Amino acid sequence: MYIPTFDDMLAAHERIKPHIHRTPVLTSNFLDALTGAKLFFKCENFQKAGVFKARGASNAVFGLPDDMLDKGVATHSSGNHALSLSYAAGRRGIPCTVVMPRTAPQAKKDAVKGYGGRIVECEPSTSSREATFAEVVKETGAEFVHPYNDHRVIAGQGTCSRELIEQAPDLDAVIAPIGGGGMISGTCLTLSNLAPTMEIYAAEPEQADDAARSFRAGRIIADDAPETVADGLKVPLKELTWHFVSNHVTDILTASEQEIVDAMKLIWKRMKFVMEPSSAVPLATILKNKNIFAGKRVGVIITGGNVDLDRLPWQ
Amino acid sequence: MYIPTFDDMLAAHERIKPHIHRTPVLTSNFLDALTGAKLFFKCENFQKAGVFKARGASNAVFGLPDDMLDKGVATHSSGNHALSLSYAAGRRGIPCTVVMPRTAPQAKKDAVKGYGGRIVECEPSTSSREATFAEVVKETGAEFVHPYNDHRVIAGQGTCSRELIEQAPDLDAVIAPIGGGGMISGTCLTLSNLAPTMEIYAAEPEQADDAARSFRAGRIIADDAPETVADGLKVPLKELTWHFVSNHVTDILTASEQEIVDAMKLIWKRMKFVMEPSSAVPLATILKNKNIFAGKRVGVIITGGNVDLDRLPWQ
Repeated sequence: MYIPTFDDMLAAHERIKPHIHRTPVLTSNFLDALTGAKLFFKCENFQKAGVFKARGASNAVFGLPDDMLDKGVATHSSGNHALSLSYAAGRRGIPCTVVMPRTAPQAKKDAVKGYGGRIVECEPSTSSREATFAEVVKETGAEFVHPYNDHRVIAGQGTCSRELIEQAPDLDAVIAPIGGGGMISGTCLTLSNLAPTMEIYAAEPEQADDAARSFRAGRIIADDAPETVADGLKVPLKELTWHFVSNHVTDILTASEQEIVDAMKLIWKRMKFVMEPSSAVPLATILKNKNIFAGKRVGVIITGGNVDLDRLPWQ
Repeated sequence: MYIPTFDDMLAAHERIKPHIHRTPVLTSNFLDALTGAKLFFKCENFQKAGVFKARGASNAVFGLPDDMLDKGVATHSSGNHALSLSYAAGRRGIPCTVVMPRTAPQAKKDAVKGYGGRIVECEPSTSSREATFAEVVKETGAEFVHPYNDHRVIAGQGTCSRELIEQAPDLDAVIAPIGGGGMISGTCLTLSNLAPTMEIYAAEPEQADDAARSFRAGRIIADDAPETVADGLKVPLKELTWHFVSNHVTDILTASEQEIVDAMKLIWKRMKFVMEPSSAVPLATILKNKNIFAGKRVGVIITGGNVDLDRLPWQ
């Protein structure tokens, strides 16, 4: 297992800069008054492909050696990683194959195609997905880019908090949602080098709290198909992300479904930006743990903005 | 009738700078490809009180002479002007009274109160509103600040396009929604001085096209209670705004209800920001008049972001 280094993150940043946005950091007097903290929202919902994952995917794609370009990249995902990898591959002009269940929403399929990805459908089961994916790799020779358990991806995600601490100096803490742990791992990688005393909080839905339980148990606990409105956060930690989480995270806080939806609506209403339920989990946990955050300068990573506008969770 | 001057706009900008945001200008490769134009979205949805009207209201409030401060300001509005005037008055620490129909949505009443405004309720009729408002002014001696037919308000709104042309140089055209004409008048005031060859388009709902008909007829035509999803754009032009519209506007374009809703959803989906139906009218008219805008650099004013998240127009 190769653990990405601080230099890998710096190299990633140079590599991907032409292909990503340096997203803005927004603030809200209203939410500061409500929480007692000074919050700095790093808006990756405005990122390319609408999500921070464009960073890691771009690093993997633009770091591919020339002799692998013809074969392209591949992944299995029906979510933001598929979009991001398609975006990056399209930008480099190489093939990208995404294995998706045939039952995935048409909107997601259209989005992947819109970024230039090729979809190979499988049945909606793990066995079919794995068999289909193996076939795709065999047929194309494509490079597999895992959504988070990949050193290139983690180094890429680490560029987000590097920008954040330049844009919002002297933070006391940073908080980000945790699913598989790619964003949190990148954050740990960067901040443990640039700001080693800064607190790093992960925020997780109560209904998919495998990372919080792993953190307390001291080993990876994976749940089978948890259900939560924060649909980007259902996947478990893997070895590489567990390394960063277990070594560098201050604590993992959780919020209920209702608290997540309320926080999401509050951000839409007061800050006027569109973001996913997953991105609301940090604010939800801040609101219920004011004692931890009051009086602090806190970076809050808004991870993405790809939400189905026809199925908003408060409807 | 006092017509505000370019110097009034400059003075307004100095006066209100501490109290407003210099809002960002955002772009979208996707929407550029779709329209054939290069679009620069001036995002007043991120403005204080969620709307450009914070500019004009702040100019009126912070320009009040000291001997009028005790009596404060007043208006009749159940919309964005009420919010903005309450915001500005609260910021200066002076009273603000808003006459609102008792049938106005509780959320709007709460929002005005949230900014420190005092509400006096009237019956939902013009006669009751006028009688109640006259009583309020008599009782308080408050200064009436009209939502748009007011030189202080227009000078304040003009600061928006001054920022826009600094942030997005060499524009060929600017487009903004038109209701009573406050934003468009401020835009005309500023651009006729700073960029006299720039085209100025106004965008209006087909179902509330009184400004377009006025423009063609050469005189103010006012409709009685038009119905449109773009609820900020139902009010008619008045003398002062007609002066600017008739002298400086290049053309007034219209869009159907469906076109407005589609454009709104498109912006939410691709640009990830929350804005009102009124703010979508410019993009809706650009999409149906590509011949006018293709190849041009176009400033698009997103006027506000105060939308009822429980009643989105595509639901």
